Formats: sequence, C-alpha cells, structure tokens
Amino acid sequence: MKKLVFAIIIMVAFTSCQNNKTTANTPFTTSNTHHQDSTVIRAIFDTALSDGKGYEWLRDLTQNIGHRLSGSPQAAKAVLWGAQLMRTQQFDSVWLQPIMVPHWVRGPQETAYFQTENKKTSVAICALGGSVATPKKGVSAEVIELNSLEQVAIYGEKLRGKIVFFNRPFDLKLINTFDAYSGCVDQRWAGAHKVGTYGALGVIVRSMTNAIDDFPHTGSMGYKNLPKEHRVPAAAISTIAANALSAALLTNPSLKFYFKQSCKTLVDAPSFNVIGEIKGSEFPDKYITVGGHLDSWDLGEGAHDDGTGVVQSLEVLRIFKANNIQPRHSIRTVLFMNEENGNRGGKKYAAVAKENNEIHIAALESDSGGHTPRGFSYEGNINKTSLFKSWKKLLAPYGLHDWEKGHTGVDIRPLKSDSILLAGYKPDSQRYFDYHHSANDTFDKVNERELQLGTAAMTSLIYLLDQHLD
Amino acid sequence: MKKLVFAIIIMVAFTSCQNNKTTANTPFTTSNTHHQDSTVIRAIFDTALSDGKGYEWLRDLTQNIGHRLSGSPQAAKAVLWGAQLMRTQQFDSVWLQPIMVPHWVRGPQETAYFQTENKKTSVAICALGGSVATPKKGVSAEVIELNSLEQVAIYGEKLRGKIVFFNRPFDLKLINTFDAYSGCVDQRWAGAHKVGTYGALGVIVRSMTNAIDDFPHTGSMGYKNLPKEHRVPAAAISTIAANALSAALLTNPSLKFYFKQSCKTLVDAPSFNVIGEIKGSEFPDKYITVGGHLDSWDLGEGAHDDGTGVVQSLEVLRIFKANNIQPRHSIRTVLFMNEENGNRGGKKYAAVAKENNEIHIAALESDSGGHTPRGFSYEGNINKTSLFKSWKKLLAPYGLHDWEKGHTGVDIRPLKSDSILLAGYKPDSQRYFDYHHSANDTFDKVNERELQLGTAAMTSLIYLLDQHLD
Repeated sequence: MKKLVFAIIIMVAFTSCQNNKTTANTPFTTSNTHHQDSTVIRAIFDTALSDGKGYEWLRDLTQNIGHRLSGSPQAAKAVLWGAQLMRTQQFDSVWLQPIMVPHWVRGPQETAYFQTENKKTSVAICALGGSVATPKKGVSAEVIELNSLEQVAIYGEKLRGKIVFFNRPFDLKLINTFDAYSGCVDQRWAGAHKVGTYGALGVIVRSMTNAIDDFPHTGSMGYKNLPKEHRVPAAAISTIAANALSAALLTNPSLKFYFKQSCKTLVDAPSFNVIGEIKGSEFPDKYITVGGHLDSWDLGEGAHDDGTGVVQSLEVLRIFKANNIQPRHSIRTVLFMNEENGNRGGKKYAAVAKENNEIHIAALESDSGGHTPRGFSYEGNINKTSLFKSWKKLLAPYGLHDWEKGHTGVDIRPLKSDSILLAGYKPDSQRYFDYHHSANDTFDKVNERELQLGTAAMTSLIYLLDQHLD
Repeated sequence: MKKLVFAIIIMVAFTSCQNNKTTANTPFTTSNTHHQDSTVIRAIFDTALSDGKGYEWLRDLTQNIGHRLSGSPQAAKAVLWGAQLMRTQQFDSVWLQPIMVPHWVRGPQETAYFQTENKKTSVAICALGGSVATPKKGVSAEVIELNSLEQVAIYGEKLRGKIVFFNRPFDLKLINTFDAYSGCVDQRWAGAHKVGTYGALGVIVRSMTNAIDDFPHTGSMGYKNLPKEHRVPAAAISTIAANALSAALLTNPSLKFYFKQSCKTLVDAPSFNVIGEIKGSEFPDKYITVGGHLDSWDLGEGAHDDGTGVVQSLEVLRIFKANNIQPRHSIRTVLFMNEENGNRGGKKYAAVAKENNEIHIAALESDSGGHTPRGFSYEGNINKTSLFKSWKKLLAPYGLHDWEKGHTGVDIRPLKSDSILLAGYKPDSQRYFDYHHSANDTFDKVNERELQLGTAAMTSLIYLLDQHLD
C-alpha cells in the first residue's frame, strides 16, 4: 500500500513537473508571437488614431447621403458610394451582389395626441417599420395599457375596439443597455401580431430607449402570417409621451388616443451588398469577412446604426494596405444591405458563399454603435474560441476587456457553422439607445477618437484571425 | 544521488500539493467575503441606476448657478448650494471650512486676429487664468512658432518684441488622452514664465485638446517669481486657429498677430470647502474622504470639470443612507474650492486634518470627468494597495478593469502620507478634452447613465475601503 501511495505521489510529481514545464515554456513561445502581434497591433492603432479616414467617410455618408432605408433612393446612392470608395482604396476586387429587398415607405409625418376632458396632449410618434397605415382619418379609441405580450391573451376580448399601449420600460439596472433592449423589444416586434386577432384597432409601443426624451424610436415589426384584416397599425411613441399617457390613464382611464400614419409596403426593390476583397497570399480560397450594414432606418442619419460599422469595416482593409500587411487569407469588407427589416443581404451573402463552396473561416461584424471599445463577442467554432480568448491580453492595453460568448451580428449569423468563428465588435453601450432608430442618430453624436479606437480594435482582430487561423 | 533526486521530487510534490491546497482554500474564504461585498455592490449600482439623484443635482448646479471660478459670485452660491444639499440629505454634520482664494477675473471678451497682406483672420482666443492683461489697445507683433519650452533658450533674443506661439499638439497615438494632455500642458503652464526674460510681448498657446474645433480652452498659468515688468499676457487659441496660423506662417512668416485681453488678479477672496460627514460606528475618529472640486473655470458650466465629481461625491453618502449602510469609519464628502487655480482648498483640508491630528485612512477624488467608468488609480500606503487591487474582480462586472498606480487627485494629494491610501476615479478619457476648460463644458455633454455608473463605482469603492481597512 505504501508503495502504491509512493508510486502515485511520484507519478503526480512527474505529471506536475511536466505540466509546469509545459506551462513555463508555453508563455515563452507565446510571448515571442505576442511580441510580434503586439508590434503590429500598435502600428494599426497608430494609423487609425493619427491618420484615420473613417470619420470623414462617415460625415460624407451620413450628411451627404443621409438615412438609407432598404429600397430608398438614398440606399441606392449608398451602394454606389461604398463601391466607389472601395475602388478608390484600390481593393483587389470590388463587386455588387444583387438582392431584392423589402420596400416600406413611411409617407407624410405621423400625428398623434390624447384627449382628456380638459386637455389635448400632442404625442411624438412614428410608425414602426413594416406597419400598415391607419385609415385616412386616423384611428381614435380608448387605450389599454399592457406591460407584456403575455397580458394580451389575459385581456383577450377586452382589447376589441381599443388601442393597445405596450409600456414596459428598459430595466435601468442592467449594466449593458443591449440586455435592457432585448428585454423589451418583443413589444415592438410582436405586439401587433399578438393583438391582431382580438379586434384591437392599433398598437402603440413605448420607444426602445433608456433615455427620457421626446424622440420616438422606430424599428421593425411583423405580422407573421396574420390575415390582412387582422393587421393593425403599429407605432412607437417617445418615452416622455409614454410616461405622460400612462399618468393620464390613471386619472382618465377612458381618455381617447388618436394617431394617423400613411406608411405602406411596396413591391420588393432591387438592391445590393457591396463587397471588396484583398486576395490572400497563402490561402486565397479561404475567407475572412468584416462588415457592417449599409441600410439604416429612415429617421436621423443612420450614424451609429450602422454608418460607424460601415466605415470601420472599410477602414480595416485600408489600414492593412497602409501598413503593408499582406493577409494570408482573402479578406472581404462587406457592406450588407437590409439588416434593419429583412436581413436579405446577410442571407444572400451566406447563400452565395454556400453555392460557391467558399470556405469561410471567420467573420466580424460591427453593429453596436461607434462608441469607445469594450471588447468582442464570439460564437461558432468551439476549437477556435480558446485561441480567440488568448488574444484578450493583446488588446487589454487598448481598453478591450470584455470577450464574451454570445450574439455577434445579424448579417454574419447566416454564415454560422461548426467551422467558422463569428465575432461581434462590442463598444460601450451606455449612449447607444439614446440614438438608435431615432431622428437623434446623427453624425454629431459620433466621437472621432472613439470611432477610430473601434476601427483599430477591429483591424487588430482581423489581423490576429488571419495570422493564427488556418 | 538518485535518493537525493527522489527526495527532492517528493518534497516538490508535497510542497506543490500544499500550495495547491492553500490556493484552493484561499478563494473559498475570500469568496464568502466577496459574496457579501458583491451583494452590497449590486445594491449600490441598483440604487444609482434606478434612483440616481446626481444628474438632476448637476443640472441645477451647472444651469442655475453656472461656472464657478474661485472668488466669483457663482462660486459663493455654489458653496451655499452644496451645504444646503448636504443638510437636505441629512448628513450627520455639515460645515464650511474657510479659506482665502485667488481672485482672477477675465473682464470683457478677448479679441484676436492675424493679418497677412491680403487677409485678416479672426481667432478664437481666451486669456489663460492668472495672466496679466494686454495694454488697453492690445498687442500686435510678429509671431515665432515654437513646439517646446526647450526652444525658448535656443531662440533667446530672437523672441524680443515678438509674440511666442506654442503649438505642440496632443499626441493622438496615446490611448489615454490625459497622457496627451500631460505631454503638452507645460506650454500653457510655463510658456509665459519661460519667455518673460527675453523681451517677448505675449504668449499664445494651442488649446489643450485633441479635438479640432473653434473653442479656446483656458487653464492656469504662472509667472513664478518673474518681476512684474517681465510678465507678458498669455492666451489660448482654438486648434482651428492654431492650425490656420501655423499654415499662414509658412507662407507669411512676417504676418502680424493681434490680441487684446483685460483680465486681472484682484486681492484674495474669502471662500470655503464644503464638508459633510456621516459618523463611523466602529472607528468614528478615523476618516475616509470622497470629493470633487466645486470651483470651475469661467467658460462653459463646469459640468465635466468638475460638476460631475461634485454630485458623485454627494451621491456616495446618500446611497449609503438609502441602502442603510452604516459605515465603520467616519466618511466625509468634501467639495473642495479652488482646485483650478491654486489648490487652496485641498491644502487647507490637509492642513486642518494635521492640526487636529485626524487619522485619514483613505481618500478618493473624482476629477476626470463624468464619462463611463474604466477603473481607479491609486497611490500612497503600499501595504494597502494589494488589498485594493484584490477588489478589481468585484468591479470588473461593471466595466472597471483599469487599476493603475499613479496620480489620483489634486485636491486629495496634500493628504498623502505613508499611512493613507489615495484613489482617483478614472472614467473613459476619449471625450474629456473636447470640453475641458472651454465653453463646451456644459450639462448637455453629460450622459445620465455614464454619470450614475461612475457614482456607483465610487460608492462601491468607499464601501470596500470602509469594510476592509482598519
């Protein structure tokens, strides 16, 4: 027995020594690689911070073209703008990938108010993307305030002839505002679908923001396969209006809410993803994609959503070229069309990749705003994620500490498989929903240095993916 | 020999096991404490984020009182405002600590332009704090552009009769903008002092910002013990003006620059630090201080510098009370007066503490803006710093990752000794110098959630200091 114990101890000792040796050696090797990597990353940050182009590109896109809803003339201009910019930057190949996109138009400015016995209160409102119009004279009805979709079935027939007001606010205690958004957005997306069969006349939804202000925030909604007669108009109202309406309902439960909107869905329109590529020296037939979406909602200028992602993705290849970094794999910047209301661009890109038997090893999307960098999310190929996480220390000096498994990007998601590593750029989230999908999402809300730091972080990640994946 | 090797291996094996055990046990004990701490910290964040008061306090301070230069009527109002707010919040004791402060006044708006043969270009300018006036008609002279104080002695007599233009820009490649500021601010602080004896007629300095805009940024400067006849007027010009002037000098080296300012230093004025305290239950005679500075420059509204630090420091004690956290030590919120141009408040607070033999174990200052939290700096008592760093993991979930040894705060610095731990709140730095000391430092530049997250981080740190220091 003693001998056995001894033998085990010795075995443990040896194993332990072996492990220690491995552990001790690994950092040595790693450290050399890390030294090279950190030198290149420093050069990437230097270029982005002292000679960044993205901010002026963004000014041009947002202020000279403006918002760019799928199917709009501005979206068409943005396609030409993106392709022209890629050609000016002398990417190896530039092409347009044709798609058909939904074509929804808002029509004239919406109007809304609520009326108590003594007072008429105007409401800042906007139709949700994909909604039908109200009748020409608008809709006027009593209001039922709900806080969740689950309440719809409970209220049931009581909703008939009413306007249903979904008013569950962001949970302010959540540190990341995207979590608060995720916790509320079902009201916007599915509210009209849920109430449709109960004979309600319309749906109004508290805007998806933590800010208390008078900007209504639009965004996509869907009726799924509801028959046409059950499709009721849906709109967002500002958080100030939502609070005022909720307060008024306490003392005047029978108050009337009126709104009018003239939006409609036209036939699908032709559009394009814009793709630029630098050919890989070692694996020209393996691809790494970096992208943002070129379309935006039709309020504001589509600056943080997603003009910043667009110019950052364009900057990645420019900074590679400016630093004479010859990629081993082929790297593509993709400006996706139609992320906001259909994701036709993302789906098409993945479908064409599959048709062509392209091998996609990694993809990165920037669609969380242009604020100061915090880190990356990742999903997909499990084998690659430990390598991915080992790069954390390389970007920590630049303020990137959050490397979390989770959602990466709507546009790159259709590429997901067991063999690809997907990554999402994660900037600080605190201000994002102050602007998101509202008239407030304008160029002046973007800080040049924050944008550049994000650009550099993304370029660094693409560099690391290219260097260390096969 | 074999036996010796064997013995060593076994010793190593046992030592290794022992170490492993210790390592395995330590987190267990720590983890319990950490669990309690993390529960309290979560409660602190919940209060700050869902029931924060600081943002409305800041609105009141910045918009109803406005900027608050030492000796100004607004600074006097701010003292009363701070004391009143502390009383409303029912701190155990509230008092004013009298000091005499420098009293510099800007006078009427400054004017400046430069004149080439064909063109007169207006320049956005402001006197530096502490500067003398120009003669009543202003100063007009040729310009010598320098990039460092070291060049002054090299140019020497060539500066006679000239206006010296210090134009070294921020190093954009530095990630933390405070590092870029530190690398340039000698021009503002010591430029006039350096050129004084060479017979220059005035000094203009490129504004201390990475932004390219038309806001001049003021800030303190000093003549040290230069005789009065060598004290020349000093002003900041906007970065747009600095670039334009520098470009114009290339083709017109003999162009004339004109500026006029009417600022002056009056006799010292009476003022106060504002102090509020909650008595400690266990160590009432040991003190932890948290503070920001109540004074500001006389442009803008003193929002990020340092209205945010003021309201965050006030919030710390309110949040303690709101969560029924009874501190073990006495905790003081101190609104320091005169950080910007003399630090009389910070020096006085430390001097009185010394006179009264008060035992100060820790102090925290917030004077780096109200942006989203990044971490804390620390200095002082070495023995306490390892404990301090062990708290990093408690605040990492809230986005605080940067715990770095270094400068903490001008106001708390005079308390420094071997026995005190000093800490500085470090928010994201990217936007700070867009506003700092300029007309741009206004309430609308502060984001409510970013402010609240900083408040919660500071309150958490004060809680940890109180819990774990003796």
